[in-house]
Amino acid sequence: MRRFAVVLVHYPVLGRAGETLTSAITNLDVHDIARSARTYGASAFYLVHPILAQRALVDRIVEHWTTGSSAARIPTRKRALELVRTQASLADVIAEFGPSELWMTSASALAQQTGYPDARAILESEGPPVLLLFGTSWGLAPEVTALATLSLPPLAARVPSGFNHLSVRAACAIILDRLLG
Amino acid sequence: MRRFAVVLVHYPVLGRAGETLTSAITNLDVHDIARSARTYGASAFYLVHPILAQRALVDRIVEHWTTGSSAARIPTRKRALELVRTQASLADVIAEFGPSELWMTSASALAQQTGYPDARAILESEGPPVLLLFGTSWGLAPEVTALATLSLPPLAARVPSGFNHLSVRAACAIILDRLLG
Repeated sequence: MRRFAVVLVHYPVLGRAGETLTSAITNLDVHDIARSARTYGASAFYLVHPILAQRALVDRIVEHWTTGSSAARIPTRKRALELVRTQASLADVIAEFGPSELWMTSASALAQQTGYPDARAILESEGPPVLLLFGTSWGLAPEVTALATLSLPPLAARVPSGFNHLSVRAACAIILDRLLG
Repeated sequence: MRRFAVVLVHYPVLGRAGETLTSAITNLDVHDIARSARTYGASAFYLVHPILAQRALVDRIVEHWTTGSSAARIPTRKRALELVRTQASLADVIAEFGPSELWMTSASALAQQTGYPDARAILESEGPPVLLLFGTSWGLAPEVTALATLSLPPLAARVPSGFNHLSVRAACAIILDRLLG
């Protein structure tokens, strides 16, 4: 099994009108995705945000749960939040985690997406570490997806519901389960 | 495919020490689970809470997104939150939704759990509607699980991580995907 990390990108991501923007940190993204990442064996969970004050907010949340007053009260949460790292850019993530394949997730059907069974087999085979990227807001900007080693298809029910607006927390949980469950 | 609904129970649920308690409504449970429920074709998403003021809080959140100022701004969120219903008890849910099988979810391995492929086949076969129950806090109390028609096993990675503390939002998303994705 390859070493892998989850990366939650707050810039550059798309807005509703297709513009590029910086989204705000959501507290529950930190908790939920850290818990999912720990459950499915990730080595780290990176939050990418270019603004220092937003990274400091994440670091404070993590500190509260890993060394602060909640660490002893709920030790399982501590184990999850110990995976959390903040970086200013994707380049900084790669510099820390090491040379990696970049796997993109998207709520849109795009050309050359690799199905989940194939991606699962690739993750189980020998090869470089994998960074599994998720975009907040309306998803990863083209300047990020252009770097893709591999792109995963959008999630959908077997009987199509015509609705694909999962939260990034839910999408991340499902994709980790499809790849590693 | 059988008709089904997601049910999020706030009482009776377990506390950390195994005591029975009533948990508080979490705003993001309403949003995330409604979005997952809509994606995977649920007919409704019930939040069960015995306290009127807590049900009124949910109703206000739903109103804001379905007929209030955010309905036009983000129509996809409206479609998700239109699934949300509140009831004071599981009995009231059954009275509204109709006679149903009660499927339990749990983070613990219990006797006589039905694997996901089998449960998926049952959901696709002819039969009564299904209420898919999730417990907040430390999970559904025994007085609820005693009513089970079927119990689903805990979620886990293929390579065991020894950590099974997913958020209920993440667990619900994954279970809907395993049954209906």
